[in-house]
Amino acid sequence: MARKGKLLILSGPSAVGKGTVIDALMGKYQDIAYSISVTTRQPRPGERDGIDYFFVSKEKFSEMIENNELIEWAKVHGNYYGTPKSYVEETLNTEQDVILEIDIQGAAQVKEKYEYGVFVFLAPPSLKELESRIYKRGTDSQESIEVRMENASKEMKKVEDYDYIIVNDEIEKAVKKLKAIIIAERCKVD
Amino acid sequence: MARKGKLLILSGPSAVGKGTVIDALMGKYQDIAYSISVTTRQPRPGERDGIDYFFVSKEKFSEMIENNELIEWAKVHGNYYGTPKSYVEETLNTEQDVILEIDIQGAAQVKEKYEYGVFVFLAPPSLKELESRIYKRGTDSQESIEVRMENASKEMKKVEDYDYIIVNDEIEKAVKKLKAIIIAERCKVD
Repeated sequence: MARKGKLLILSGPSAVGKGTVIDALMGKYQDIAYSISVTTRQPRPGERDGIDYFFVSKEKFSEMIENNELIEWAKVHGNYYGTPKSYVEETLNTEQDVILEIDIQGAAQVKEKYEYGVFVFLAPPSLKELESRIYKRGTDSQESIEVRMENASKEMKKVEDYDYIIVNDEIEKAVKKLKAIIIAERCKVD
Repeated sequence: MARKGKLLILSGPSAVGKGTVIDALMGKYQDIAYSISVTTRQPRPGERDGIDYFFVSKEKFSEMIENNELIEWAKVHGNYYGTPKSYVEETLNTEQDVILEIDIQGAAQVKEKYEYGVFVFLAPPSLKELESRIYKRGTDSQESIEVRMENASKEMKKVEDYDYIIVNDEIEKAVKKLKAIIIAERCKVD
């Protein structure tokens, strides 16, 4: 069997800062490939199609599911999110490491198919802090915040299924830890 | 059970540079405790008693074995080396991480008693490179070099028993990788 790249999965509750940590990692290090997710949700201010996400219609998303083009997909807070399969598999086959940023449901699906993946749970310093971050982001209704918080509370228990946990108290520290995990995983004896 | 510190073991063939890597690590980071080994061999130029090793007589060493004061001990190239137990256990109990620098035989003994230890194999870029390092060190006779090389060739196969491998091609890179392993291990989900 040919040597393959490492598949890293960064997951954690909604609004914990997964995107910010990945952006900071990718800005600093160019030795890992980022798999862009596909979503049916509307772009938030500043988000760019083909860079932050591939923004698609519900029809297009359904088509991708039917054609088995997604590694995982999930409906989160009313919107669909998925990971295109071809990019991930082709990149791993070139011995390049790939990092995915996905929600907890999606990560569980990836674990079923890619048990050799490295699963990293990004945790908020506390649920209170998480709630305050969602408020500050200002893109969610009160009702939506309540749903997110309820989900987050359940999702925190899933940490047991992960290989690593990083508490996102400071972006820079979290990025340093994520980078350390990538370096260490590359040193693992198979 | 109380949370304990992590026990890291850096091992590898003789002359691969374990001591240099540990010195550089300890010089740069002060957040891990180094367990000083006890040995019956003569100090090399520059080595200091109680800092690089505890230099003791063969009689004293035998006494320590009899009193069960060593985690592991081994006879390597005609000299005895061992790891004092009290320091390691007391330090781990204070939740402080400890790093040991030991030969391959000693590491195998530690693995029997501390299976939760993190075992890191420091490898030379090649056996040819290792031989050239022993020559340059200039502290070994031709016969001693031959014995070391024969052992090293056997020891390289033990890498399978380790969690991580670091190829010591450049000290700075090796230290960075070792530090990354320490950080990553601290993020592990138990």
